[in-house]
Amino acid sequence: MSAPHARRDALSPARRADVLVEAIPYIRRFAGRIVVVKYGGNALAGAEAGALASFAQDIVLMVSVGMLPVVVHGGGPQIGALMERLGMTPTFVDGLRVTDAETLDIARMVLVGKVNRDIVGALNVHGPLAVGMSGEDAGFITATARDPALGFVGDVAHVEASAIHRILSGGLVPVIATIGSDGAGQAYNVNADTVAAAVAAAVSAEKLIMLTDVVGILADRDDANSLQRRLSVSDLQGLIDRAAVTGGMIPKAAACLSAVQRGVSAAHILDGRVPHVLLLELLSDQGVGTMVTMGGTEAPGL
Amino acid sequence: MSAPHARRDALSPARRADVLVEAIPYIRRFAGRIVVVKYGGNALAGAEAGALASFAQDIVLMVSVGMLPVVVHGGGPQIGALMERLGMTPTFVDGLRVTDAETLDIARMVLVGKVNRDIVGALNVHGPLAVGMSGEDAGFITATARDPALGFVGDVAHVEASAIHRILSGGLVPVIATIGSDGAGQAYNVNADTVAAAVAAAVSAEKLIMLTDVVGILADRDDANSLQRRLSVSDLQGLIDRAAVTGGMIPKAAACLSAVQRGVSAAHILDGRVPHVLLLELLSDQGVGTMVTMGGTEAPGL
Amino acid sequence: MSAPHARRDALSPARRADVLVEAIPYIRRFAGRIVVVKYGGNALAGAEAGALASFAQDIVLMVSVGMLPVVVHGGGPQIGALMERLGMTPTFVDGLRVTDAETLDIARMVLVGKVNRDIVGALNVHGPLAVGMSGEDAGFITATARDPALGFVGDVAHVEASAIHRILSGGLVPVIATIGSDGAGQAYNVNADTVAAAVAAAVSAEKLIMLTDVVGILADRDDANSLQRRLSVSDLQGLIDRAAVTGGMIPKAAACLSAVQRGVSAAHILDGRVPHVLLLELLSDQGVGTMVTMGGTEAPGL
Amino acid sequence: MSAPHARRDALSPARRADVLVEAIPYIRRFAGRIVVVKYGGNALAGAEAGALASFAQDIVLMVSVGMLPVVVHGGGPQIGALMERLGMTPTFVDGLRVTDAETLDIARMVLVGKVNRDIVGALNVHGPLAVGMSGEDAGFITATARDPALGFVGDVAHVEASAIHRILSGGLVPVIATIGSDGAGQAYNVNADTVAAAVAAAVSAEKLIMLTDVVGILADRDDANSLQRRLSVSDLQGLIDRAAVTGGMIPKAAACLSAVQRGVSAAHILDGRVPHVLLLELLSDQGVGTMVTMGGTEAPGL
Amino acid sequence: MSAPHARRDALSPARRADVLVEAIPYIRRFAGRIVVVKYGGNALAGAEAGALASFAQDIVLMVSVGMLPVVVHGGGPQIGALMERLGMTPTFVDGLRVTDAETLDIARMVLVGKVNRDIVGALNVHGPLAVGMSGEDAGFITATARDPALGFVGDVAHVEASAIHRILSGGLVPVIATIGSDGAGQAYNVNADTVAAAVAAAVSAEKLIMLTDVVGILADRDDANSLQRRLSVSDLQGLIDRAAVTGGMIPKAAACLSAVQRGVSAAHILDGRVPHVLLLELLSDQGVGTMVTMGGTEAPGL
Amino acid sequence: MSAPHARRDALSPARRADVLVEAIPYIRRFAGRIVVVKYGGNALAGAEAGALASFAQDIVLMVSVGMLPVVVHGGGPQIGALMERLGMTPTFVDGLRVTDAETLDIARMVLVGKVNRDIVGALNVHGPLAVGMSGEDAGFITATARDPALGFVGDVAHVEASAIHRILSGGLVPVIATIGSDGAGQAYNVNADTVAAAVAAAVSAEKLIMLTDVVGILADRDDANSLQRRLSVSDLQGLIDRAAVTGGMIPKAAACLSAVQRGVSAAHILDGRVPHVLLLELLSDQGVGTMVTMGGTEAPGL
Repeated sequence: MSAPHARRDALSPARRADVLVEAIPYIRRFAGRIVVVKYGGNALAGAEAGALASFAQDIVLMVSVGMLPVVVHGGGPQIGALMERLGMTPTFVDGLRVTDAETLDIARMVLVGKVNRDIVGALNVHGPLAVGMSGEDAGFITATARDPALGFVGDVAHVEASAIHRILSGGLVPVIATIGSDGAGQAYNVNADTVAAAVAAAVSAEKLIMLTDVVGILADRDDANSLQRRLSVSDLQGLIDRAAVTGGMIPKAAACLSAVQRGVSAAHILDGRVPHVLLLELLSDQGVGTMVTMGGTEAPGL
Repeated sequence: MSAPHARRDALSPARRADVLVEAIPYIRRFAGRIVVVKYGGNALAGAEAGALASFAQDIVLMVSVGMLPVVVHGGGPQIGALMERLGMTPTFVDGLRVTDAETLDIARMVLVGKVNRDIVGALNVHGPLAVGMSGEDAGFITATARDPALGFVGDVAHVEASAIHRILSGGLVPVIATIGSDGAGQAYNVNADTVAAAVAAAVSAEKLIMLTDVVGILADRDDANSLQRRLSVSDLQGLIDRAAVTGGMIPKAAACLSAVQRGVSAAHILDGRVPHVLLLELLSDQGVGTMVTMGGTEAPGL
Repeated sequence: MSAPHARRDALSPARRADVLVEAIPYIRRFAGRIVVVKYGGNALAGAEAGALASFAQDIVLMVSVGMLPVVVHGGGPQIGALMERLGMTPTFVDGLRVTDAETLDIARMVLVGKVNRDIVGALNVHGPLAVGMSGEDAGFITATARDPALGFVGDVAHVEASAIHRILSGGLVPVIATIGSDGAGQAYNVNADTVAAAVAAAVSAEKLIMLTDVVGILADRDDANSLQRRLSVSDLQGLIDRAAVTGGMIPKAAACLSAVQRGVSAAHILDGRVPHVLLLELLSDQGVGTMVTMGGTEAPGL
Repeated sequence: MSAPHARRDALSPARRADVLVEAIPYIRRFAGRIVVVKYGGNALAGAEAGALASFAQDIVLMVSVGMLPVVVHGGGPQIGALMERLGMTPTFVDGLRVTDAETLDIARMVLVGKVNRDIVGALNVHGPLAVGMSGEDAGFITATARDPALGFVGDVAHVEASAIHRILSGGLVPVIATIGSDGAGQAYNVNADTVAAAVAAAVSAEKLIMLTDVVGILADRDDANSLQRRLSVSDLQGLIDRAAVTGGMIPKAAACLSAVQRGVSAAHILDGRVPHVLLLELLSDQGVGTMVTMGGTEAPGL
Repeated sequence: MSAPHARRDALSPARRADVLVEAIPYIRRFAGRIVVVKYGGNALAGAEAGALASFAQDIVLMVSVGMLPVVVHGGGPQIGALMERLGMTPTFVDGLRVTDAETLDIARMVLVGKVNRDIVGALNVHGPLAVGMSGEDAGFITATARDPALGFVGDVAHVEASAIHRILSGGLVPVIATIGSDGAGQAYNVNADTVAAAVAAAVSAEKLIMLTDVVGILADRDDANSLQRRLSVSDLQGLIDRAAVTGGMIPKAAACLSAVQRGVSAAHILDGRVPHVLLLELLSDQGVGTMVTMGGTEAPGL
Repeated sequence: MSAPHARRDALSPARRADVLVEAIPYIRRFAGRIVVVKYGGNALAGAEAGALASFAQDIVLMVSVGMLPVVVHGGGPQIGALMERLGMTPTFVDGLRVTDAETLDIARMVLVGKVNRDIVGALNVHGPLAVGMSGEDAGFITATARDPALGFVGDVAHVEASAIHRILSGGLVPVIATIGSDGAGQAYNVNADTVAAAVAAAVSAEKLIMLTDVVGILADRDDANSLQRRLSVSDLQGLIDRAAVTGGMIPKAAACLSAVQRGVSAAHILDGRVPHVLLLELLSDQGVGTMVTMGGTEAPGL
């Protein structure tokens, strides 16, 4: 902690006060509002040691100033790693992993028993703050089979918002593993981007924030200077249509579109590798990454 | 379902009514009371196909008639099985398994991500009823290291009853995986019998029920006819002292002692292999298994 | 009690469990639902000694499993008996008894001071459960004169549901004597079948159950085998229209029609002479008597 | 109403205002306080036509200004009258009426079904205000047999205050018929003066007011000028000991003693024949009748 | 106190009771209803010593019997007096006083710091009853500039009723100084008659009472016998149109019109010089002054 | 706003984040805690234009992050100024100003009608946040005369905490003018430092902050380098005893002592001339001014 302190000590009281005063309107604006944060398996897997702790600090500050953060996470790389250790070979149909009963068991163990626990643990270092949830709990996420050929890969049919509100009203942070179940109790593995959007819509979140490992959406994916700071829903649809958005960014962009179209005020694609990127986005005049809103022209947060 | 119906159809209305009427005083007595049920990993692992479903039906009936069941489960055999699949060799110190960081990860994945999920799923077949909890959630179970030589094996320091009450007050059934954490967020694997007793004491449960694979406590373990139907705390301590209680029954007996000494009215050791043994114990004049109470002479439930 | 116990002892645990398990879905379905039970003066007057106690047991079990029973009673035979003792001679106009001020006083004394008290007392043997209500209390049942020639015979103009809900929310059973009053405080004697239907409609009851001394509605009143197990509203109207329903059954049938048409899911005519007929109807797959629903084809309770 | 209006019209605005202003401190003092009023069967039986209506007006004004009146009534003369009509001959043991099962039935009918109804009705002329209660309802008044030779004559063992508070909190006036019951559901006839004192103590009433047909307690019963305006508990005990209090006044005096000794601030014996005597006592500087307090010297109401 | 007592002592109990009984229906009718009372600066300034105390007694009695009074006051004469002492000369534009920043400061000091305090103090002599409010508090009265030439003279744009309800629900009396503020925090002096009407409309008051120093509205201002006891909105508009209402009575008449047109049941113009005029108006059959209702023909209070 | 932005723009995201992250533990520690801030008349009188606005921003940020600020203010210089304008000459007894009725009127007008209004107005620029209170409201501050020779100078006898809690629970900021009243409604002028300490003790405040125009308490008042950063109660008493604390600092030091001795965790003397000194004290590791705690060695805020 010496280095940061050294840096901070050089900061004048006036400039410290400026930062705090600048945060006032944002804090007031977002007090009591729900912000859904999608934290990807990649972020967790590839991160340097401090990344999860830094993420946890940001979530704790959000709680401290009265926001209601909800964390949704995936865990693809971690599932793959355990399967590999167990000598299992993934099967793919049209590029999608087939999820048989054993794979589902692995996915559940990793998502609910490993990734979810690690995030909950990192938050609870700051106090009794976080509660893990799996979509299977008490009908929380209802899923339906996407395609029999894919096995237990599910789509979100319903998110029971009351389960999230009950935890939020206790002053706690829900951390959601993206397993769903159908009416008969059968579990399904569900895409985390999709769940994050569905959760944001179900709880009438103010914001959906997708933490990724890119700086945002580029108009020209070969040109880092083509970062799009603000996009309307139709702008983003246009970029998707002309294939400017590709690969893993497609489900993230689709989640942003879906959330905003279902009433979430703004969806953000941020670079989770930047320390405290959540704070910078939420509590300062500096917008970072790409913000998607219905019209595309709203101010970044106010 | 034809066979049971055939049997039932032969039952006269008067005898049906008798069974229901006999249940009245028990239902009234236990309405709104918390009953902690320890469901062992052995029960789950060795059971014929229908055992989990039958267990789930009993829990659902308990909810239906106004009791507040809390399920605590272990998962030793399942942890061992996954370790074996991963080529890990358990180490033991004085007969206790050493739990290093990797073993802890395995235990968490199995308990929270597999066993807990299976129980939650079996209950939720009947409706949105069950919510999985891990002791790590929001400071729910605080654990301390038992012995450095054992690694992350923990003892229960505190159970936060409010977390359980919050779920119960929503009309839901908590299903608790026995992972705890210390103030610094470090997780520990905790013995499930111990957790069950600590939970029962913390929530001021009316009963603690240990579902095992034996008929109860025998005065002479070689004589199945020496089943002890009622034991006082001192009776049971006597049996332990003269080594009549041995092996895996010791922690179960100790949990019963601990719970009753900390205010739980009665602790039961029942044979989980008997279908609907919970209902028979709770809702009829027929006591089954061994009941431990402070004085040993109270009536079986009324 | 020895005989019933003797019988019960012969019942195997498995068959006992079957009865309880069979009751689960009904208990869940009716939990928190209001069931209005009309208990006739005939049932009370002509009954063998144990009938009222058996009725009380059933009501207590309904409470135990979370239902909200409301009892409405009449008392024609008891009113007649007291009038006779007092040497009063009833006068009739078109077959309806003229209720002058003195007759009304007698009716009030018998209904509120005798029949109501006896039912309340039988229930309170099981604990502080029942509260007597008269329609005169705090504007509970507003009545209007039916016909000046009949004196103080009233029709129901309004039932104040909040008075019933206040008692139900205290976990208590309202037992309602069918005296009403008008805005000026004048009391009226009101037909109990009519009140039962009006109460069921006012409190949005799930069921209205008329306990009578017949097995149900017969298509051919001379043929005991012509019992109608399920009737739609139009079926029942048809039977009334072609005079298949006659005499004292007419107001009961009309009450069933009225309740179902005003939103009560099902109305039942049961034989109150069968011990525990309420339990058999409510908590088992065996429907008894006649059930009237809007369409006539719904399952018997689920 | 012409005469009173005539008188009132002559009253100057200033003097009207004086009366209202004089009432202010009393209204403020008694707002939200419980006042138990014993209304005797004699008052009801012997009264000129308007007495019950005048009593009802006073109770309504008490409610209007925020007091919480509770009415307890007897009905001895009315019970005797019905017994006589039915050709029953009372039996006495040491001057106390033996109450066999039939007599109890008569008493219940008269108290609950006739007197209680009449009072409830007179109050409800002013709106939905009054609710009848019998001590049998839901364990409200627990009684024990006084003496086997007397049959079902009971003493008050317990008054369940919550039942009264529930009605008061709904803004309603409880009107209590003095039948009690024991744990087994057996009803008893209980002396109304005794019940009034027990109710006043159980609900922590501010005042107990006994409406009688005398002007108060006389030091010399042959000297109407010997009215005692204020008595301490020991003064009153002295008058009883030297037999200055006699006959029917004894239970009333005993009720006053009992209530004050159990925490009721003041007990009053007032002449119920004076129109609006309750208002004059409660809302003006003029005390009337006899007031019993612990010390005997407190101001009359402030 | 001797003189009033002397007078009162001559009053018979029956006549005292008459006054109280006559008040019953009014007390019941106005219980829980809000009555806004405008108390003018003239009343305060010109009054003999006891006028404010008498006013305070009336407000306290209103509270005692369950009404919810709200006091709105002005303070023109007091503002003028302080300006004069400070050597300031008022400027007028078209007969309206120009309010520059310094004048506004004076007005605020007098209204909030002097007149408001005096009224609050007079009420609090009777207990902790009154709370001063200024329209500047927490957005309570939003004002807009009427005319730049007049400076800080404001019109009422919005009254935040919740601020008043919060105080009323604490059982307290709001005493409102008529300063408003705009969104930028700029204060304005607002006419008290206008504020009183706006407050009455905002809180859905039952009545608006304007205490003035005239007997009411005269059809012919030179004929004291032409007092109009009841006026419809259109009657009053007619009197204004034909200039029968003049001078300082115009804003009062306009306030009555405005309040009634926005839902207040009745507006009254009373002579505040008559002792206890509020009680006489509110709690007796004698209406005083002028009452304005929508149709003009409603009964005076019932 | 260009200058501040220019400065801020030069600040790197990492350093901005540092400031916010550093604030986390303080925000969490003080969330829901009451902080009483004494804002002196000198601060207001002598301040450059922006000081009140800067103070208001700090209070608003405190609200934004969940603290519950309470502002207590004096107004000595402003009272003196108005007296001077009115040509009044203050009289002193032993250095204390004699407060006759007219002086009290002036003080009330200035404190309640001017200073209080200015602070409320500056806060409400940010939204409907602040509510002015005078100690006279509804028995809020009970005062007693200090010395007849001083006239209406009062000491605090009681602070009614519920009045403050009611405003705080509405999410609002109480701004308190330091006028008190006795039981008879007589107002008194009370020293603001004393009131601030009494308020802090009455509401169990976490902190009392005295904003002054000095840097803190000096051990040697001639040596600006002798600032005492932390003082125990006994340290401070020692400094007072040896006359190191003098003049206007004495009542401030006494207020700190009194508050801490009555349970307030810490009392601070800060230099109100430093912009945003409240934020720097409350939300950063940098303590400023002098902090008084019971033992003197606690960490500055955590």
